[in-house]
Amino acid sequence: MQIATTPVQEPPSEPTRDGLPPMPPGPPHEELHFAAQSPMRELVSGAGQGLVLPFAVTATLAGLGAAPSQTILAGLAAAAAGAVAAGLGSALAARDAAARYQLERAREEEESHLYPDRERWEVAAILHRYGVRGQVLRQAVEAIASDRRRWVDFMMRFELDLSEPDPGRAARSATILAVAQVVAGMLPVLPYAMIGGSAALGWSAAATFAALAALGGLRAQSEDLPPLRGAVQALALGAAAAVAAWVLAATLG
Amino acid sequence: MQIATTPVQEPPSEPTRDGLPPMPPGPPHEELHFAAQSPMRELVSGAGQGLVLPFAVTATLAGLGAAPSQTILAGLAAAAAGAVAAGLGSALAARDAAARYQLERAREEEESHLYPDRERWEVAAILHRYGVRGQVLRQAVEAIASDRRRWVDFMMRFELDLSEPDPGRAARSATILAVAQVVAGMLPVLPYAMIGGSAALGWSAAATFAALAALGGLRAQSEDLPPLRGAVQALALGAAAAVAAWVLAATLG
Repeated sequence: MQIATTPVQEPPSEPTRDGLPPMPPGPPHEELHFAAQSPMRELVSGAGQGLVLPFAVTATLAGLGAAPSQTILAGLAAAAAGAVAAGLGSALAARDAAARYQLERAREEEESHLYPDRERWEVAAILHRYGVRGQVLRQAVEAIASDRRRWVDFMMRFELDLSEPDPGRAARSATILAVAQVVAGMLPVLPYAMIGGSAALGWSAAATFAALAALGGLRAQSEDLPPLRGAVQALALGAAAAVAAWVLAATLG
Repeated sequence: MQIATTPVQEPPSEPTRDGLPPMPPGPPHEELHFAAQSPMRELVSGAGQGLVLPFAVTATLAGLGAAPSQTILAGLAAAAAGAVAAGLGSALAARDAAARYQLERAREEEESHLYPDRERWEVAAILHRYGVRGQVLRQAVEAIASDRRRWVDFMMRFELDLSEPDPGRAARSATILAVAQVVAGMLPVLPYAMIGGSAALGWSAAATFAALAALGGLRAQSEDLPPLRGAVQALALGAAAAVAAWVLAATLG
């Protein structure tokens, strides 16, 4: 394998405007962003999130002396409500993102008709930021702006940072999240149904923390981060939520 | 105002490879995405999320005949745990995203040394997708690749879709989320503390649904979407979460 050496130039401290004309007037823009995740991360992080509230709610009720039957009811309610809030919330957010994408796309297309010089300049400004200059910059901008669909594609992607939403993917994400959360949410509740008494709280904590550590580790691994870091973070999150629940309930309840 | 007319060309059905050489070998890449929101959206959506679980949990317990004191404990526990899970969860996710960004950046930089032809080709492929061709494409790629920092910046932003994380912004987001959720989470619980009896459930539902509709409308408005749509979605989410909580708890509890 041959390794080509590229001369590294320091960027000029005052950026040159070579090829970048002064900005023509145009409408103001908002910066927007769009989130996406892999199914693996969604499953693992959904399950991890699903553990936290049922554990915190049941531990608080059991710790403050509630009847086991009511502890179980509260844990199941938290598991189901959390799963629906996460799954349906994710589906509705995706629906909004799709509507928003169409709206921004129509606006960007309209601006390319109404303010073609400004929209060309915005393309130029983006390429200029990465070192394209002079005649090459002008020609590259003309090439992009010569096809309106590509021109609008470029602005959606590189100016507004919006990717075209995928409804199938959004529906799959929402389902994964909801199922992972409600299944995981049963785990902290089970010991109260099977064991009862003060031992149930201990078993619930043990099962929850073991699952949190495993899921946190898997999640970190899926992101190429150290699994131990992920495990510790997930444990800290679960413990902090339970402590906060206990403190607030014990103080105000 | 003069409206310039731009000739709209149909893209060729078979994309031309003019200026885009065959892909040299290189390591495989993962597509990654990064999410961001405005403080307004975070506040409004945090408060909206904060209502759902305490309402669903308290409505389920009250509806299934739990004592008011335990209904209140469970609602407070859900509010506090939800706030910590959202706020600390968001802060930890931002910490992971920052670590991930550094990791990917180091990897991309290394690849620009190890596989310069492939990395140049990837720059070319991105510009080619938007219609830049031939000599202009080659010169634009050389301009970008002539400065390694800009070259890596370009790949991080346009190939991997990763923006540099802002720790200050992440900390602010986490705080907004946690505070909004815990404050909003008190609302559905208050009627049980102030009124008691079966009337409390009605007042809790009325207050929660009014707040959900207002927050859902505001949130949609902040995204340029119809406020009524946002209000209806938020109400649907709150009602679905409460029904799911009730059904699961009544079935298994």
